[in-house]
Amino acid sequence: MRTKLMVPGPVDVDGEVLLEMARPMEAHYGPGWAKLHWETVEMAKEVFLTRNDLFVIVGSGTAAIEAAIGSAIGGGARPLVVVNGGFGERLLSVAGSYTPAVETLRLPDDRPIPPEAVDEALRKDPGIGMVAVVHCETMTSVLNPIKEIGEVCRRHDVLFMVDAVSTLGGAELRTDEWGIDLCATGSQKCLGAPPGLGLVSVSERAWRVISEGNGLGWYLNLNVWRDYAKRWEDWHPFPITMAVPAFKALKKSLETILEEGMEATWERHRRASALLREGIRRLGPRTFVPDEWASPTVTSILPPEGIPPERIVEHVERKHRIRLAGGIGKYEGKVFRVGHMGPAAKESRMAEVLWAIEDALS
Amino acid sequence: MRTKLMVPGPVDVDGEVLLEMARPMEAHYGPGWAKLHWETVEMAKEVFLTRNDLFVIVGSGTAAIEAAIGSAIGGGARPLVVVNGGFGERLLSVAGSYTPAVETLRLPDDRPIPPEAVDEALRKDPGIGMVAVVHCETMTSVLNPIKEIGEVCRRHDVLFMVDAVSTLGGAELRTDEWGIDLCATGSQKCLGAPPGLGLVSVSERAWRVISEGNGLGWYLNLNVWRDYAKRWEDWHPFPITMAVPAFKALKKSLETILEEGMEATWERHRRASALLREGIRRLGPRTFVPDEWASPTVTSILPPEGIPPERIVEHVERKHRIRLAGGIGKYEGKVFRVGHMGPAAKESRMAEVLWAIEDALS
Repeated sequence: MRTKLMVPGPVDVDGEVLLEMARPMEAHYGPGWAKLHWETVEMAKEVFLTRNDLFVIVGSGTAAIEAAIGSAIGGGARPLVVVNGGFGERLLSVAGSYTPAVETLRLPDDRPIPPEAVDEALRKDPGIGMVAVVHCETMTSVLNPIKEIGEVCRRHDVLFMVDAVSTLGGAELRTDEWGIDLCATGSQKCLGAPPGLGLVSVSERAWRVISEGNGLGWYLNLNVWRDYAKRWEDWHPFPITMAVPAFKALKKSLETILEEGMEATWERHRRASALLREGIRRLGPRTFVPDEWASPTVTSILPPEGIPPERIVEHVERKHRIRLAGGIGKYEGKVFRVGHMGPAAKESRMAEVLWAIEDALS
Repeated sequence: MRTKLMVPGPVDVDGEVLLEMARPMEAHYGPGWAKLHWETVEMAKEVFLTRNDLFVIVGSGTAAIEAAIGSAIGGGARPLVVVNGGFGERLLSVAGSYTPAVETLRLPDDRPIPPEAVDEALRKDPGIGMVAVVHCETMTSVLNPIKEIGEVCRRHDVLFMVDAVSTLGGAELRTDEWGIDLCATGSQKCLGAPPGLGLVSVSERAWRVISEGNGLGWYLNLNVWRDYAKRWEDWHPFPITMAVPAFKALKKSLETILEEGMEATWERHRRASALLREGIRRLGPRTFVPDEWASPTVTSILPPEGIPPERIVEHVERKHRIRLAGGIGKYEGKVFRVGHMGPAAKESRMAEVLWAIEDALS
């Protein structure tokens, strides 16, 4: 019996998506591939809810994040990174590797970012050119109020960059409506595809900044990606060798998501999440944050007093063949986590998980 | 009938390697994955013929190249890029995106780089810290004398970076013996795996330079990769989400190569290449460079007067279901190319290709 993956990414991938990975190799260029490329990009835009440019980069979600942040900094945008968790720290590392002039707003990690705090930081420092935040911090399962922070950014006329790696395709996210200039995600979480690709959307506003400079670096430089997308549009619309199998798997996975529809997909994640959270509390453990702050894509759980979370994770894997995640860093030995992203975000799977956790606790 | 891929990458991938791509997803961390990771890295080192550190990066071959060049520049090495073809120009673009202080040595593209030219350039400019060259230029099939250029670099005590994307695992390449400090390749050519991973080896000499600076950028910063490889050695020895299926496919493919043995693998490529080149000339077309300058991994061919290369490529694909490559840039409409890399580099496959080309010419 194989182990079911219920970690916050990568996620179990549907059989029909996996099969795309095993097809005989084909070249990543020529009119046929270009057509498949642009069809896939259009589908990804529908999932992002954007009409902006969108690029699929061979790399992890962090590659897409770095393409966004690095390119904007290369164009002269001084970043304000708002940090309320480990992936916010990652944004900071990325931004700091491009410029020493990074402003940081560090906030408590057990609650969402208050939009007023961002507003205040921007009022204090009118030299800021871009705000970067994480949509969901997977360690705590805190979901940040992207829409409201987006409004603040519009008011101050600064670029808005969102790390949506653990939410896009699972939690409600409206790139254009919410004014997200640079939105980045990876293939292996709510998009339900294997890891290996990063996706990033770029608004006209962002282009005005990015195209101001040559940027730093080549591989993750969005100016380079745009140049090839235009110049080689009809046969090789990207600067590098595309990861052909991962790209085809992503296409299949996007098809599945769009067939279900974004609202229905989000609702499925919400329902699965609600069932899990309620069930967990009935079993005794506490959820790390109250429901109104929680992401529908991952649940961070505090085990009952005296029971180490590793013991629960270990038991659930060994006896029930379900892989959960533990805590990392300051949360090691404190929490355990259930990912409910993509195809596995369904109530029946949550029932299995709850049953296994109940067994581990008894 | 599916089309056989005989372009200079990606290559047809063996069924057993493809199957690794379609396995149920697993997490890219934990003791089990760390073990698989290090086993794979050890195998890759055997193929590189190196005892240096080696990293597998989620990205194309260019990602590995940029990790090497960008990290060395970040540590203060001023690069000399020796260019005798399109991929040399790519090295230049990458280097130039990290520093304006790039020295360029542009040489004719229809012959290998003379090591004396590199020697002279280094004598003229003692401020150079790294020489970067391409092993094989796939447009012309020129193979550069890496061993000899390596000797020049050692004499001048500068770092030696080699883009071995289209040769490593197919043409003889001895990373340590030839003094290659930074050797980069991709998964999808002679390594016989699907595209999506870049590999780069890093010598102690290179580390002494690279660790001097913080580097520019995060995702392709080798300091970051080394840090995680040490700090998270036993459970997550890389900074990002690994492309699990591509990594497992690479492992399988490396196993196959090592089973055959490096000498035997190189010899197979040599024999296939020799058969093709001789056969081509018997049919009428000329090979772009004489045999002694040619890579055993790709053959660039000048069609007989009056026959456009696209017509040959088109006929071979339509009628024989074999995909060859045309020329790009200044070689568009001038040459066509046969890739013989990885599993397809065998005499029987060359016979098929020759038969199809003969038909196209008749």
